[in-house]
Amino acid sequence: MKRKGEAVSDTAADLGGWACPLPLRNQERVVLGHGGGGKLMGELIEHLFLPAFGAAAADATATDSATIDLGNGTRLAFTTDSFVVQPIFFPGGNLGELAVYGTVNDLAMAGATPLALSTGFILEEGTELDVLGRVAAAMGNAAERAGVRLATGDTKVVERGHGDGIYVNTAGIGLIPDGVDLTPDAMRPGDVVIVSGPIGLHGVAVLSVREGLEFGTAIESDTAPLHELVAGMMTAAPPGGIRVLRDLTRGGLGAALCELSSASELGIQFTERDVPVPEAVRAACGFLGLDPLHVANEGKLVAVVSPDAADAVVAAMSESAVGVGVGARAIGTVTDDHPGAVIARTGLGTSRVVDLPLGEQLPRIC
Amino acid sequence: MKRKGEAVSDTAADLGGWACPLPLRNQERVVLGHGGGGKLMGELIEHLFLPAFGAAAADATATDSATIDLGNGTRLAFTTDSFVVQPIFFPGGNLGELAVYGTVNDLAMAGATPLALSTGFILEEGTELDVLGRVAAAMGNAAERAGVRLATGDTKVVERGHGDGIYVNTAGIGLIPDGVDLTPDAMRPGDVVIVSGPIGLHGVAVLSVREGLEFGTAIESDTAPLHELVAGMMTAAPPGGIRVLRDLTRGGLGAALCELSSASELGIQFTERDVPVPEAVRAACGFLGLDPLHVANEGKLVAVVSPDAADAVVAAMSESAVGVGVGARAIGTVTDDHPGAVIARTGLGTSRVVDLPLGEQLPRIC
Repeated sequence: MKRKGEAVSDTAADLGGWACPLPLRNQERVVLGHGGGGKLMGELIEHLFLPAFGAAAADATATDSATIDLGNGTRLAFTTDSFVVQPIFFPGGNLGELAVYGTVNDLAMAGATPLALSTGFILEEGTELDVLGRVAAAMGNAAERAGVRLATGDTKVVERGHGDGIYVNTAGIGLIPDGVDLTPDAMRPGDVVIVSGPIGLHGVAVLSVREGLEFGTAIESDTAPLHELVAGMMTAAPPGGIRVLRDLTRGGLGAALCELSSASELGIQFTERDVPVPEAVRAACGFLGLDPLHVANEGKLVAVVSPDAADAVVAAMSESAVGVGVGARAIGTVTDDHPGAVIARTGLGTSRVVDLPLGEQLPRIC
Repeated sequence: MKRKGEAVSDTAADLGGWACPLPLRNQERVVLGHGGGGKLMGELIEHLFLPAFGAAAADATATDSATIDLGNGTRLAFTTDSFVVQPIFFPGGNLGELAVYGTVNDLAMAGATPLALSTGFILEEGTELDVLGRVAAAMGNAAERAGVRLATGDTKVVERGHGDGIYVNTAGIGLIPDGVDLTPDAMRPGDVVIVSGPIGLHGVAVLSVREGLEFGTAIESDTAPLHELVAGMMTAAPPGGIRVLRDLTRGGLGAALCELSSASELGIQFTERDVPVPEAVRAACGFLGLDPLHVANEGKLVAVVSPDAADAVVAAMSESAVGVGVGARAIGTVTDDHPGAVIARTGLGTSRVVDLPLGEQLPRIC
């Protein structure tokens, strides 16, 4: 490894510079936490990818999708996600469903109508074709449910002992309707923070089969497409009433709130007991020492909406025919009291800072 | 494994049906050849992916990119590729450059102007950040050279012993100009087949470092973006004069010709000695028993053009300022004599059928 003081030759990533102001935790190598959706990943993006990509990534934003303006009034949302979950099949879902819904949801968070997905497979030599067929069939069904084309694809095979059975990358494009511009910049003090339903189910469901744990009740992943829920929310709110949306994946609700707070340079405050945590998730997290705020979800979102839109949006979510907004509720508000910080009011009546996790409590959950 | 006669439950892939008419070579498991761009991959797509994807993939075509019609007169090309080449750095290029140029070229083959790429990384725990930084810097440089944004990205990390250092998926979107519709359906008997330059360099360059072989002279990968070359060809040809384009990657020139012949239901005939094979590639292939027609390239294309366009197109390619068309030449013609078959006239003055390879002679070359 080259370190500070040595020639960095053809690398645009300034390794020496990582010591300050946001250290990359003095890592010289990739650690699991770099993929966890927390601080380490943020540092990897800020200190390695963005400097290395240079001008080519000048317009990159810290959102789930990029906006591509075609110049003729048409704006596209464009996003990508790779899926490496282990095991491939888990209660309530599988790798194939995640790969479709995860990318559909990233498009939905921009308010976009999903149009088409690409599918890139990296297969390990020796993987059973039956397993691959089941994953592909799940993708086909999920795409039909989400009304999105599987338009183009690619398959690579790596030698046995590399890869992990099946990795899938999906990229997606969607059409952003005129006038829709969901961004943390739109957040204002007094805005209401809404979560679409009970949290933590996906992470605990994956963990339960991976570690062979039983939690008394069956816990199923919440993987689901959210674009129809979002469409209903947009209809229910006055123009501009929906400020910004984030789906809750790696890093959980906590990471999503921290990102929104940081990006808007506003504070977010919420009350812990208002956060819908299913009893089974509560039990599993208590047993394992996990924070439900940071357990992954795959079919939940957080919305920041204007005060006058909040009741109508919660009602529209709860009553949505697609059923993925059941349990939606307001959990907190935006404030200018503590810019960039997320503060939770605890069950003790005290306040605590909710911080972005360093990495991920559970790797390989999507 | 479930076999014929058993319930297939939730799989849409008809495993029993693979025995006929195009057998999947009786494999029950993924083999390296499934990723090789040859017959095995074609069978995997036809007999597993397309049936499993079902209606969601109804419009899928056997081309490098999909066309997404936005309904307002705007047509997008949309494509994806994963890159798993070993080693990551090889003479003349690296994984990062391939990941950008490979996807840019898939867009260029549709005549599209590349707009934006997504970047999906699957990193192995323990990979040196310095190596990742060099790959990312190569992607940034390549994207700048190709005039394309790195618009959105994703990073996953898998445990040490899985993955392979760095896998990169890129998906790309490009704008297809009005009136451009490059398709094998446009091919006509008498059309001229043009190759853009010397073939086989990429595959032999990767092989030389992987196997520690020396071939007397340095062989460098030809990895390069082709969209500017294509733009020049379009300008040089009369409207409709460029029928169809294919970049030569896995499976080489031979696979590209077979695919064009099969898709157009026309024959292609060419003369072996007209195919530009560099002396070093010839020597390496002779030594190793490889067919240069099936060795991978990363910066070459084959074009089918109308007879009246051929001279102008070859001249435009040879003189292109971007330098990636040096050595372009006509190698053959389209015929209705032997529909769906590619026939080469050998050095002996005889004819031979050029067939799609079963898999790939060299895995992990892109």
